[in-house]
Amino acid sequence: MRYPSALVALIRELGRLPGIGPKSAQRLAFYLFNQPEDDVRRLADAIRDAKASLDRCPVCFNVMTRGESACAVCTDAQRERGVLCVVEQPADVLAIERSGEYQGLYHVLHGALSPMNGIGPDQLTIPALLERLATEGTQEVILATSTTVEGEATAMYLARQLGEGEIAVSRIAYGLPMGGDLEYADEVTLGRAISHRRPL
Amino acid sequence: MRYPSALVALIRELGRLPGIGPKSAQRLAFYLFNQPEDDVRRLADAIRDAKASLDRCPVCFNVMTRGESACAVCTDAQRERGVLCVVEQPADVLAIERSGEYQGLYHVLHGALSPMNGIGPDQLTIPALLERLATEGTQEVILATSTTVEGEATAMYLARQLGEGEIAVSRIAYGLPMGGDLEYADEVTLGRAISHRRPL
Repeated sequence: MRYPSALVALIRELGRLPGIGPKSAQRLAFYLFNQPEDDVRRLADAIRDAKASLDRCPVCFNVMTRGESACAVCTDAQRERGVLCVVEQPADVLAIERSGEYQGLYHVLHGALSPMNGIGPDQLTIPALLERLATEGTQEVILATSTTVEGEATAMYLARQLGEGEIAVSRIAYGLPMGGDLEYADEVTLGRAISHRRPL
Repeated sequence: MRYPSALVALIRELGRLPGIGPKSAQRLAFYLFNQPEDDVRRLADAIRDAKASLDRCPVCFNVMTRGESACAVCTDAQRERGVLCVVEQPADVLAIERSGEYQGLYHVLHGALSPMNGIGPDQLTIPALLERLATEGTQEVILATSTTVEGEATAMYLARQLGEGEIAVSRIAYGLPMGGDLEYADEVTLGRAISHRRPL
């Protein structure tokens, strides 16, 4: 037996999403088949509308509503304009915002350096970052790229680029996650947590 | 900072899908934001089209292209028309088809009996099944509902309904999955595999 072509197409498109394998795609397709027409239409519309109505902020490259002059952070007069936090993805902005510990501005790289995959500074928003730092009067840059090999390399690269200027450059702290048992921490994290210990 | 409303809507709709939590929904939303417009549109169209162009087969309730008279199995003249395999979901039909062991027809219940959740015979396609068995000249019914509590109860219920007639009723075999280590089988499965042993 062959599935109807519309179902095959749906399973194929769902299977393209990250983290969704062929089995999950099939399960989702049948789930949608069994949902009321209105719910399914709402999902399809949300996908189409999001793509059509979202854009990258021309200043910091965070996500923003298309047609606006800049994103919600860049246009917020309350933010400290002398501090810039560099992250890999828009989702990282939200994660830091949720912590409530940061009042400055952001710069979203949209990735990390990965020479093996052909991703150099020009494939990221690094030229725009250097331009901002040269013109915006930034006093501190916090490098909040992830602690993967690529994220570390990106932080090191940026630190070297900025090292000669008058901007203070810092890296987010390494250490134990809160609420974690020492026993379950990997040795690299634990080693960093000890070597970066702070006086109380 | 607040996310643009189109992004919030997309995360909310994706989060409604089964097996996709808030974090996965956010990750998928950002993934879609970063994909080319054509790819995103293709996904949205596939979802909309599938819902609009799929329907339940009026005979066996398997999935079929809307507007056709019956599904690909029911309309296939090659199939054995005296055997009927009863399954819970359209996905189960595909799973059995892939095994290549079955040449008969199907009947999709679209669920299993679950009195606690208000699902009785009339909420499933059981009345239509009994009607088919009364008119189609079926010689054998294979009960291939799942081996969950609800699936078992459904099989038992159907076996009782059909017990008095002249139709042979069987249940798919319980036992060890192929390629499995005895050591890792749960005790219920292993118990069934021993009590249902077959002479070689």
